[in-house]
Amino acid sequence: MFGITRTIEIDVQETDISAEEGGKVVAFLGPRASYTHQAALDTFPDNDSSYTLSPHTTIEDVFAAVQSGTAWRGVVPFENSSNGSVVYTLDLFADRAGQYPGIVVSGEAYVEVKHCLLGHTASPSSSPPTAAAGLENLAEPDLSHVKKIYSHPQAWGQCTRFLASRLRGVERIDTSSTSRAAELVAGDASGEAVAISSRAAAGEFGLSVLREGVEDRGDNVTRFFVIAKVDEGEAGKEGEERKEDVGFKTLISFTIDHKSPGALAASLNVFAKYGLNLTSISTRPSGVENWNYLFFVEIVGRREEGDEGDVNMALRDLEEVCRGCRWLGSWENRLAG
Amino acid sequence: MFGITRTIEIDVQETDISAEEGGKVVAFLGPRASYTHQAALDTFPDNDSSYTLSPHTTIEDVFAAVQSGTAWRGVVPFENSSNGSVVYTLDLFADRAGQYPGIVVSGEAYVEVKHCLLGHTASPSSSPPTAAAGLENLAEPDLSHVKKIYSHPQAWGQCTRFLASRLRGVERIDTSSTSRAAELVAGDASGEAVAISSRAAAGEFGLSVLREGVEDRGDNVTRFFVIAKVDEGEAGKEGEERKEDVGFKTLISFTIDHKSPGALAASLNVFAKYGLNLTSISTRPSGVENWNYLFFVEIVGRREEGDEGDVNMALRDLEEVCRGCRWLGSWENRLAG
Repeated sequence: MFGITRTIEIDVQETDISAEEGGKVVAFLGPRASYTHQAALDTFPDNDSSYTLSPHTTIEDVFAAVQSGTAWRGVVPFENSSNGSVVYTLDLFADRAGQYPGIVVSGEAYVEVKHCLLGHTASPSSSPPTAAAGLENLAEPDLSHVKKIYSHPQAWGQCTRFLASRLRGVERIDTSSTSRAAELVAGDASGEAVAISSRAAAGEFGLSVLREGVEDRGDNVTRFFVIAKVDEGEAGKEGEERKEDVGFKTLISFTIDHKSPGALAASLNVFAKYGLNLTSISTRPSGVENWNYLFFVEIVGRREEGDEGDVNMALRDLEEVCRGCRWLGSWENRLAG
Repeated sequence: MFGITRTIEIDVQETDISAEEGGKVVAFLGPRASYTHQAALDTFPDNDSSYTLSPHTTIEDVFAAVQSGTAWRGVVPFENSSNGSVVYTLDLFADRAGQYPGIVVSGEAYVEVKHCLLGHTASPSSSPPTAAAGLENLAEPDLSHVKKIYSHPQAWGQCTRFLASRLRGVERIDTSSTSRAAELVAGDASGEAVAISSRAAAGEFGLSVLREGVEDRGDNVTRFFVIAKVDEGEAGKEGEERKEDVGFKTLISFTIDHKSPGALAASLNVFAKYGLNLTSISTRPSGVENWNYLFFVEIVGRREEGDEGDVNMALRDLEEVCRGCRWLGSWENRLAG
């Protein structure tokens, strides 16, 4: 169903970047002005002609582009601080059909999510924008004309209070991204549609910001992964600037014999044994049999060239206690400062 | 943020059922003919006048009805075999605002999900219905007139192949349940709308089954929880028919010090120590600080009256190694036969 660690032999580090004509293609979940676009720009700046940023329609399209080599890197959303994992992305990493054998995480980016209500008419409350506007904002926009609201499913879960208090019962239409929601509202002639999207999308599609900061929590942050393809059999290449292991994170997936008491604890003990802190754990249905799960763990540390290092030893031990595991990349920890 | 185990003192077992005038109210995620309705009927049969089944609009409404005492039991979806956890339900069990201090799981039900494409016009392929129709069905319904498709967000993830091959690019509209999707299509006069819903919903709302079995996997099962309210301080009441512990499951939530390597492994080791098998683990953002999680574990076994028993001892040990934990109910394991 999915390979073991040994099928992938190298780390991917940004140091393997080499110049190419026209710029290396970076696929991201589009359209332009999406939060993923902001994450992509954070890592691959617009003013650097080494990169050509290319919007893709779905997260799956980004994975496929990187696997096929059409794109050199991909940028996909992974997790939101309020709303949890992006299950679509986890399911692509689960790779149940073996379509993405070479995909690993090679970097991460954090983007502060400040959702706005976008529509066709400006309202006094949209200017000046204040981060602390909250629900106590006195100059409330009139939303009585609103019949439809477009956004990405994750945004519904991040703006529950605003939606319940100001747009209760309004028809919600799911879109593939928040910027796609803005694009659809821009194309809606009725004027009765609004979108939950970003301020950047308002500029991109010529909409007004009716209200800023409609998310439940002020510290709403989405984490993105940069994905790359590793070539099987290629020898490991270490970056010249060797950093301390605490400056890296590693993603690993595994399944266990779910009928064995303590199988999950035994798997996690492997990381404890080498002092590797788990920064997240997620589960998805294994796709093999019902009520059997694939686990994703993220640990502080990196896979090394050769056999040495705590992560390498943990991976070796893990293979002994779990049913199958896969190294899904090691990358620089952007939260370690 | 959430209480420790000791704040809830009793098990809830079906043996505390007593006769009441008009029947005890069972709240379920409606409308009628939803999969949750089928799960409710499985546990509280229609022909038993002891129960009055009452449809509610949202999962939150069901929790609120049980917490306030308006309903005696509630039935909510918890997990789908293909698509994973129902995060809305997990977030209500997380109870970050302390609104549901008395809610525990008192039972479970499994319903086989056989999604159908419902619409206004019958098609030859809808009769006779065959479970094994799959995508190879020769008499394909003509779907060229379809402009909108309604369903619950979970259903999109369960019918990816059918949607990609037959309804690619068609506008998708999220609904609160699959039966609500059928209700909306029934009220749509254009004839251009279809729903992914159940055969039962076709009967309930007068729609035709255009195609049966549109889900990706034939063994698509959704698990539901029956929820009840426990009164703090009430003494534990054991059922007369004492069953072996393997016939019960228990749900527990806890948080850990996420900066401590091995904190999660240490928590799970508590269950391993007492030979308690974990049947599932889920995580949600803790709501306290970013990238900090609330864990939900399900184990085989039950909480006992008094201090004895493996689950009781594990809960006591768990309090020593985690930051806060809460017992969320013990119930009869319907998969243990």
